[in-house]
Amino acid sequence: MIERAFGLTTDLYELTMAAAYFDNGLHHPAIFELFVRKLPGHRSYLIAAGLEQALDYLSTLRFTSDQIDYLREHPSFKKVSGEFFDYLAGFRFRGDVWAMAEGTAAFGMEPLLRVTAPIIEAQVIETFLLSTINFQTMIASKASRIVASASGRGVIEFGTRRAHGTEAGLLAARAAYIGGCIGTSNVEAGHLFGVPTFGTLAHSFVMSFEDEDDAFRAFLKVFPETATVLVDTYDTIAAVKRLARDFGVSIPAVRLDSGDLCELSKEVRQILDEAGMTNTKIFASGDLNEYRIADMISRGARIDSFGVGTELATSYDAPALSRVYKLAGIEANGHVSMRMKLSHDKATYPGAKQVWRFKDGNGKYSRDLIALADEDAPLTGSQELMASAQPLLEPVMKEGRTIGDSRHASDDLTIGLPETAFTRLNRARERAAEERKCFAPDLLALDSDVKYQVSFSGQLQIERDKLDRQIRSRQK
Amino acid sequence: MIERAFGLTTDLYELTMAAAYFDNGLHHPAIFELFVRKLPGHRSYLIAAGLEQALDYLSTLRFTSDQIDYLREHPSFKKVSGEFFDYLAGFRFRGDVWAMAEGTAAFGMEPLLRVTAPIIEAQVIETFLLSTINFQTMIASKASRIVASASGRGVIEFGTRRAHGTEAGLLAARAAYIGGCIGTSNVEAGHLFGVPTFGTLAHSFVMSFEDEDDAFRAFLKVFPETATVLVDTYDTIAAVKRLARDFGVSIPAVRLDSGDLCELSKEVRQILDEAGMTNTKIFASGDLNEYRIADMISRGARIDSFGVGTELATSYDAPALSRVYKLAGIEANGHVSMRMKLSHDKATYPGAKQVWRFKDGNGKYSRDLIALADEDAPLTGSQELMASAQPLLEPVMKEGRTIGDSRHASDDLTIGLPETAFTRLNRARERAAEERKCFAPDLLALDSDVKYQVSFSGQLQIERDKLDRQIRSRQK
Repeated sequence: MIERAFGLTTDLYELTMAAAYFDNGLHHPAIFELFVRKLPGHRSYLIAAGLEQALDYLSTLRFTSDQIDYLREHPSFKKVSGEFFDYLAGFRFRGDVWAMAEGTAAFGMEPLLRVTAPIIEAQVIETFLLSTINFQTMIASKASRIVASASGRGVIEFGTRRAHGTEAGLLAARAAYIGGCIGTSNVEAGHLFGVPTFGTLAHSFVMSFEDEDDAFRAFLKVFPETATVLVDTYDTIAAVKRLARDFGVSIPAVRLDSGDLCELSKEVRQILDEAGMTNTKIFASGDLNEYRIADMISRGARIDSFGVGTELATSYDAPALSRVYKLAGIEANGHVSMRMKLSHDKATYPGAKQVWRFKDGNGKYSRDLIALADEDAPLTGSQELMASAQPLLEPVMKEGRTIGDSRHASDDLTIGLPETAFTRLNRARERAAEERKCFAPDLLALDSDVKYQVSFSGQLQIERDKLDRQIRSRQK
Repeated sequence: MIERAFGLTTDLYELTMAAAYFDNGLHHPAIFELFVRKLPGHRSYLIAAGLEQALDYLSTLRFTSDQIDYLREHPSFKKVSGEFFDYLAGFRFRGDVWAMAEGTAAFGMEPLLRVTAPIIEAQVIETFLLSTINFQTMIASKASRIVASASGRGVIEFGTRRAHGTEAGLLAARAAYIGGCIGTSNVEAGHLFGVPTFGTLAHSFVMSFEDEDDAFRAFLKVFPETATVLVDTYDTIAAVKRLARDFGVSIPAVRLDSGDLCELSKEVRQILDEAGMTNTKIFASGDLNEYRIADMISRGARIDSFGVGTELATSYDAPALSRVYKLAGIEANGHVSMRMKLSHDKATYPGAKQVWRFKDGNGKYSRDLIALADEDAPLTGSQELMASAQPLLEPVMKEGRTIGDSRHASDDLTIGLPETAFTRLNRARERAAEERKCFAPDLLALDSDVKYQVSFSGQLQIERDKLDRQIRSRQK
């Protein structure tokens, strides 16, 4: 298989810039922030995900000699000094990272992650961080919508075969779990991340037998307590009637995968109930998304849980986020010199930032404020509002080593035990569930046109205007 | 980083079915075919890609003892025999595979790949094959549209940061190259697959200097022959004017990344030309797709090459293919017993198939025919038409070992040398370019409503109707 070492998992310009910094003797610390400019249509919030893989990457990032040789022979690097390649051989990421914990709700323009590191280190990691955090955040956000639409019924992620390659399938399963799915069909995600795995059986199994009932019998013999019997290969209702008549009451579940799932579920429920099979669950799948699930539930569907594939694992209606990783400042002589760009439609805000979240009197989120990281009192308001203020970015890596609550802390459940990736994953999932409870109901509506209030602090606006004037005067 | 062994890179139901086959003593050979039911909107053809990674997977697929332990402890496998886990420990894929070569044009319902193997082996590989071939085919197809829209100007794949994780970015770069891109920004794709890599510089580099011109000078010092100077950080025209006035004629290229790219390109070209910088190229990027590129070219844009990111690496307007992997037959007692399903909207055609492509008198593709693999003369027609008949599925793996032209053949360029993955990749890219030349022009149009003619042979229709009647009579 493909063997991957992640030094070259980046865009070429990250490495040409690195060489240009190096050969110009530029090693000053820089501050970069990762944020989404604007949420896509049909998204009123995001659920942050992917930090675990991002920190793993930063902890282990190296350039192998084979990779360095590739760059040395690359036509673009012809004039680059030999010292640069020596530097790459000893490269480690030794910067600081602040981030929102996985499972946290996030909105447009809010930094999910802030990196402070010597500029080459801060630069070359851009592509990996964006790709990993973009993707998992996008999937966790989509999952959260689908889970909310299912009104408490279980949703299982089923999309590996339609995901963008098998790593995308694996990470989609993880992110979907954070977003509230009860599990996945992806076995690798079960093995590596501890995500609960579920499976039914495929049409091919049924078709491989001359007789459909022989297929059911063969499968139930081996999986008497967990089988979910697929009944739509030839004729759904006929198959369920035979199951009810000939197979006894102990069938764990049946799966509907085509046709009018809502009407079929009612008919199947009635057949099963009349045969005394009240414990047999109905599982449904087949081109589902949050709208179809909400619609079926509103029409009284008798479906106990849903399998969602393509729409979830590709975030089909919004398959990319406009997330960017932008320079916010440069440290020189112990002072931070703020930076911003003015490009048409793509301007940024300068300086290292913190995101503050405020609650109203009912414990619901009322607004967010993006402020400079070192502002003492970025907002004035009622005592109640101020008491609810919560900073969302927390330190997660110091000088290249992971730290703090979101990675290594112990809590009541794990006192004395090292926290595992699975504990962290479950905490992220619980956090996302808590976030949904703190949203005003109209923000959770599938086609919400409510825009959650996110504003910039007064001081940040002042710094921005000042820097804007400085840059424009230099351009003349 | 995540360490991946691919035994569990599959859906749980593949493994529960495997256990059910095993514990019922079922090991007969089965035939599965992988095809797209229906092309998505805005796609009049597909370009096959991903076979290389699929065959790598089949050649190396194993279950590690750690993975087997995971399954042994999985609640679903409680009643599964111990012998099944021993079987997994010795598992190898030893089947036969026929496939369309990478770079071949394909249409709806046409098998891209056919597997014949003992049923467990043929079943458990479904998820990986679908995920890998789905994704790369989708990206190669999107790339082919974008490349066609650029009318001979170069298109570079730029989308890793927006791809669905970094493996998706890597494979998107490979598939986009097959689809006709001249290269990618993804360095890993350059290193592992030999795809040419290109890079410019980022806004952060410009912003890290107090003065924009200092940034240009620092970069040009290290990359005098290859630099593509990003000019839109603050004011595109002002930056280009200073470049033309102060930097001399040797700047290789400038990059426009925001604003009205078409109008800016004309203005920038004029400034450069008036300064004698006629060799300085103009590169453009920023939310591009095939429509915007075609539109800009039609309006006289002076752009020499394009960088396309999000839209290409996610196939943004069609981020999934309805590709499936379906049982077509079972071998028993030396005879193939054909299989099909009748599910609502998801019915299939039975039997092992071959796809035939025919040309008209001008060498353009005129129609495809899907026939049973063992039909002698699936179509009758003019002598000219019949002489043009070309079978698209060829043997690529025999008893688990790769064979034949698409993997190990030598051609004029490599006589006496083992064929490399890069040679194969370039041949796939050339094949895709040849395919575009053989399309009728209206099939290549961006919003083509022409549907290329794909039909089923008379014998296949007869078999289908016969089997349909048999199954329906059994259901009564």
